[in-house]
Amino acid sequence: MRGQFRFQKDYVYKMPVHFSGFAFYPVRVTHGDMTAMLVEFETDENALARLIPEDFELLRPVVTVQFANFRDVEWMSNGEYRLIQVSAPVRYEGNSEGLEGVYPLIIWENKACPILGGREEDGMPKVFADVASERHVGDHWFTAAGYENCTFIKMHFWKQADLDETTVKLMNQNRVTNNFGWRYLPDLGKGGASLSHATLYPQETVIEQGASGEARIDWTELTAEEHPLQAGAISRLANLPVSRYSGAVMLKGYALLNVGDSRILP
Amino acid sequence: MRGQFRFQKDYVYKMPVHFSGFAFYPVRVTHGDMTAMLVEFETDENALARLIPEDFELLRPVVTVQFANFRDVEWMSNGEYRLIQVSAPVRYEGNSEGLEGVYPLIIWENKACPILGGREEDGMPKVFADVASERHVGDHWFTAAGYENCTFIKMHFWKQADLDETTVKLMNQNRVTNNFGWRYLPDLGKGGASLSHATLYPQETVIEQGASGEARIDWTELTAEEHPLQAGAISRLANLPVSRYSGAVMLKGYALLNVGDSRILP
Amino acid sequence: MRGQFRFQKDYVYKMPVHFSGFAFYPVRVTHGDMTAMLVEFETDENALARLIPEDFELLRPVVTVQFANFRDVEWMSNGEYRLIQVSAPVRYEGNSEGLEGVYPLIIWENKACPILGGREEDGMPKVFADVASERHVGDHWFTAAGYENCTFIKMHFWKQADLDETTVKLMNQNRVTNNFGWRYLPDLGKGGASLSHATLYPQETVIEQGASGEARIDWTELTAEEHPLQAGAISRLANLPVSRYSGAVMLKGYALLNVGDSRILP
Amino acid sequence: MRGQFRFQKDYVYKMPVHFSGFAFYPVRVTHGDMTAMLVEFETDENALARLIPEDFELLRPVVTVQFANFRDVEWMSNGEYRLIQVSAPVRYEGNSEGLEGVYPLIIWENKACPILGGREEDGMPKVFADVASERHVGDHWFTAAGYENCTFIKMHFWKQADLDETTVKLMNQNRVTNNFGWRYLPDLGKGGASLSHATLYPQETVIEQGASGEARIDWTELTAEEHPLQAGAISRLANLPVSRYSGAVMLKGYALLNVGDSRILP
Repeated sequence: MRGQFRFQKDYVYKMPVHFSGFAFYPVRVTHGDMTAMLVEFETDENALARLIPEDFELLRPVVTVQFANFRDVEWMSNGEYRLIQVSAPVRYEGNSEGLEGVYPLIIWENKACPILGGREEDGMPKVFADVASERHVGDHWFTAAGYENCTFIKMHFWKQADLDETTVKLMNQNRVTNNFGWRYLPDLGKGGASLSHATLYPQETVIEQGASGEARIDWTELTAEEHPLQAGAISRLANLPVSRYSGAVMLKGYALLNVGDSRILP
Repeated sequence: MRGQFRFQKDYVYKMPVHFSGFAFYPVRVTHGDMTAMLVEFETDENALARLIPEDFELLRPVVTVQFANFRDVEWMSNGEYRLIQVSAPVRYEGNSEGLEGVYPLIIWENKACPILGGREEDGMPKVFADVASERHVGDHWFTAAGYENCTFIKMHFWKQADLDETTVKLMNQNRVTNNFGWRYLPDLGKGGASLSHATLYPQETVIEQGASGEARIDWTELTAEEHPLQAGAISRLANLPVSRYSGAVMLKGYALLNVGDSRILP
Repeated sequence: MRGQFRFQKDYVYKMPVHFSGFAFYPVRVTHGDMTAMLVEFETDENALARLIPEDFELLRPVVTVQFANFRDVEWMSNGEYRLIQVSAPVRYEGNSEGLEGVYPLIIWENKACPILGGREEDGMPKVFADVASERHVGDHWFTAAGYENCTFIKMHFWKQADLDETTVKLMNQNRVTNNFGWRYLPDLGKGGASLSHATLYPQETVIEQGASGEARIDWTELTAEEHPLQAGAISRLANLPVSRYSGAVMLKGYALLNVGDSRILP
Repeated sequence: MRGQFRFQKDYVYKMPVHFSGFAFYPVRVTHGDMTAMLVEFETDENALARLIPEDFELLRPVVTVQFANFRDVEWMSNGEYRLIQVSAPVRYEGNSEGLEGVYPLIIWENKACPILGGREEDGMPKVFADVASERHVGDHWFTAAGYENCTFIKMHFWKQADLDETTVKLMNQNRVTNNFGWRYLPDLGKGGASLSHATLYPQETVIEQGASGEARIDWTELTAEEHPLQAGAISRLANLPVSRYSGAVMLKGYALLNVGDSRILP
């Protein structure tokens, strides 16, 4: 008997396709409870630019490492996951819109489900890592991430002062961040791409409270034996020179992921 | 400064693209140590055909549920992962080659890394689940898989007799299985596909020893609250009628994944 | 050379003893952020009494199943762990103090560290299970626990009304719960005990907010093959008849574990 | 109603006591499939002796770090767990038997069940850690262990030559190793011990094949914030000077744990 599954025109599917299919609607999901740690450092412009596709202009030679513990994740029945994202500020030059935002160099997440969606539906460079929950003793907050019990990053934050209301209000004036990605699928059985294009994935963050402080990122490079898939990426990031730590905050709030506003950038 | 990363023509990339890129070569990786449990049952032809794209002919109304514990996985530094795959025998009718093989309806795997590669490079319907290692008491072998501590499948195998050498030799005469997939990426910000096509992913299995026996699959349906992403798929599979268990084996051996032979099926 | 490690009189040690040793002080630790779900049901008095040592009087034939997600656990650098505890209300009759409290029949916890301390330092019947974080869709909250991917308990709570201030205040008037345990170590190489006695472990809970509602406990019995160590205990609990669900609340607050007030009950 | 649970004289119990109880018999369990890596180094005699109770004579200033991946663990339905044990060769001087064996300084295990039994029934200094499965690329084998994603030990082994039959036979002539422990329970609510004594726990290992090679142990000290319970122990071990790596083998075989032969040492 012939297979009976047929794709519906203009429906949206996910692999496994034959279990899915629904009319498009602009999905907008809430990550209701976000605890984040953001650490910014200045680095060498050339070294950083080598990690950014030529369709983007690097706006400042600055790297942001962001840890986020997301709870009350709506599409996961208000479950939770955690990530560490490394990004740089860019402007998309592939068209005339002059869109500015951040280009994530890598996003480590501790659950497969958001990784699949992020890669396939938004071109986000998500990969797996065990990412620990944030812990703290007094005002010293910290977390770590690893692969097969090999730690490759530790983040430290020493809280110094709560953000005042004016600062929080100011941060909330620009709630939407343009996240740029590069969605890519290889061709099969030969070189070249089946699909390769820039993406725009706007995310909205609302800050409820925050604190500023000092921070430090400690990388531990892994060997290609320890982490065959990511040792290279970790090494490239670990070797970005840190000229100066230029800012660090901890934030509590929530995020709105406007998946439906994602688009392919021409 | 402009981004300095440029794609090389005919190179192969993975997301995050800017850390990757190498000349194509036909990757062939060994899963050096495979312990597998295969359970086959006859089912309703119409119900099963509804899960198979119309480019495929369902050859027999038969479902195979396969657990595999892969160790000595070459590309993971000889590490390990586990899967449970549900598949049906099909012939690809989208061209005149008359290719026969199996169409996996779903493949649950307990690590994100093989999931990403399988989906993006081969169109395999891989999704995440916690898949337990096989255990046994005497000749009763069993395993289970779940999501967020909600078990949705248990597999049982009662070993009865070792496979004799002739049988094993026979099984090894057709070492290559054609796995068919459907690689799909949605368009962004609207319905429809960015990419949607059948794939062929040949896999080679060498059996070293085996046993036949009796088996049983126990499904536990989950609510959409318990498993927002997969409750539907689990329910569809759990409700495929079992007319008769038609075969069950445990196998030890190894597998060769001929990733380089994967191709897009026109 | 002779070993140089010597026990100091009146010091406190934990295994491995030679790395430890400190003067006694009344440890009091805060679990700063507690999310709990408590479900009470009436059961058969005889069946329940068979699970309670004869030094205790069962006060009411009532079982409380409590899930707790502890965050900001002070002694874990404000990390987290989760538990499911099943208990009954009792009075200790082994002496004339007339102490009333609860006798936990079992406490499943998802981390080894609190299990070791609880068993060895307080006689609490803690054992390991994977205990999921609570999730919810609307007012339906749920969690589950399992072992090697075999779910054995699911808890559901449907929130109906927030607790009013008076109720919360009332609940906080008796903040201290007497938890009774039975600390037991077997003799080695023969039957009998090296140590066997009742314990008292007072715990303090402060409620900040709460809600009442409907609840349900769903047990899935496991075979002795699936869970060699606990199948019997799970079965005994799963088979306690539920005459009536007699109360269900969700609570947010914090807990103070007065480890230093623990004592051996004569 | 009074509790109905009564201890039977000479029965053996485990916490939770009221679910347990059986007549003593000399339990002997098989760990049917062991893959082990043993690394020996010479160290400073005084530093090492400080970690050994004065009832033991340190025989040689030598430390053995042993990784073991146990599969086919009989009492776990032939499931699996992993450990890293650090031990020293000693003679028990607390009586006149002249028993020689090893004193484990610490045993990290990745599952709670064997930890509880080992501590309570044998006085073994078992504590929790995430212990990775062994992996290898060519002849370089490695593993790692950590806590909350903070790696504290990495073990490397470079295989050089298979052990010949004579060597293996020789190793199997003394299959039984005396493991000494110190079983300790604190008193409650004040300093001092409820129970404190040396233990003997004989273990039998049968080697089927092996290889010798070079090895290295890399410690990463953790802060008390990262690992409140074990930072001190890790630091003491990490700071034992390594005068010379004096031997390294990988072994395949099986183990027999003669739990019933365990005894309290007078």
